[in-house]
Amino acid sequence: MSEIEIVKPMDIEKRSFEIITERLNGRTFGPELDDIVKRVIHTSADFEYADQLVFSEGVVEKALAAIKAGATIVTDTQMAWSGINKKILESFGGSAVCFMSDEDVAKEAKAREITRAMVSMEKAAGLEGPVIFAIGNAPTALIRIHELVAEQKLSPALIIGVPVGFVNVVEAKELIIQSKIPHIVARGNKGGSNIAAAICNALLYKLRR
Amino acid sequence: MSEIEIVKPMDIEKRSFEIITERLNGRTFGPELDDIVKRVIHTSADFEYADQLVFSEGVVEKALAAIKAGATIVTDTQMAWSGINKKILESFGGSAVCFMSDEDVAKEAKAREITRAMVSMEKAAGLEGPVIFAIGNAPTALIRIHELVAEQKLSPALIIGVPVGFVNVVEAKELIIQSKIPHIVARGNKGGSNIAAAICNALLYKLRR
Repeated sequence: MSEIEIVKPMDIEKRSFEIITERLNGRTFGPELDDIVKRVIHTSADFEYADQLVFSEGVVEKALAAIKAGATIVTDTQMAWSGINKKILESFGGSAVCFMSDEDVAKEAKAREITRAMVSMEKAAGLEGPVIFAIGNAPTALIRIHELVAEQKLSPALIIGVPVGFVNVVEAKELIIQSKIPHIVARGNKGGSNIAAAICNALLYKLRR
Repeated sequence: MSEIEIVKPMDIEKRSFEIITERLNGRTFGPELDDIVKRVIHTSADFEYADQLVFSEGVVEKALAAIKAGATIVTDTQMAWSGINKKILESFGGSAVCFMSDEDVAKEAKAREITRAMVSMEKAAGLEGPVIFAIGNAPTALIRIHELVAEQKLSPALIIGVPVGFVNVVEAKELIIQSKIPHIVARGNKGGSNIAAAICNALLYKLRR
């Protein structure tokens, strides 16, 4: 066991990113994407994400334009919502919402025998202004977004598609990767609310003033 | 790409656990621990946890006794707090708290040049009744808990020690593993708020009525 290193609170994150950069051993994803990939590794200590993250063309520019225009970030868990840096988002007039615990959503999901995540996405289709989806849990949310886009009921500024798990997760992510919707997706089974929030924050920190 | 499988909302979690069981290929951790290990994999899709989780002797029995006695679960992030099933916890008179955003904690951390997580742990030492720590982010929280126990200012019913990262994370976890404090720790760099919440919930679900 190595000794505990004395690192000041302000320097812990900086030191972490230096270690991640060292371990990536010169590997780079381009100046726009490096900090996103590294923040995902920072939040998971899982270097597999360096191989699994998929970015659609020009996605960062589109995402930042949406945030600057006061985007609403819609999450599929309270955990992802909690992890998002709302201060920066709100400084541009945006906000983060999660409809998963709303009573109307629960009722309708039960009546229709579909997931609350699906009903939440339908509710999000009624939002004004640019919408960013940060999906870290429910593949059914991705599937419903994909359908709503096909039905021209929704036009997301960005989908962060990083649900975790084993039932329809891989397939739902491939739907989004093959679509024309701007996306950041973690291929495979891995992901989570923490990953969704980390990607949101990596984008927001690019606009920190 | 395989086809999307139609699975009813109620059955998604059940099906996920079946897939995890299949992929563990007969491997078992004992009747008390299997559901904890599987819930961690369920929340991360990361089978490495099957090798990395460390349980101190009799820890489940001690944890359940603490929950039944109305334990307070103290987290080091709002995300972990959000992910914990408060309904079951509260049915036993317990609660979950996170002091990280408290103004007094922020002020004191700044003045003393230590992390807010360390000050939060000191604040938790003043709580009445059994305390369970669910630490998914800050190794400094584990280090401070270890010191407070040595100073006999704190006697945790359980430490869930699963911070993620690269600065002092491995070392802080080893401190807890080598201590006599009841613990569930994820060895190595991996962990996170999602893992901390998943372990809390796996314990709570054992008491679901």
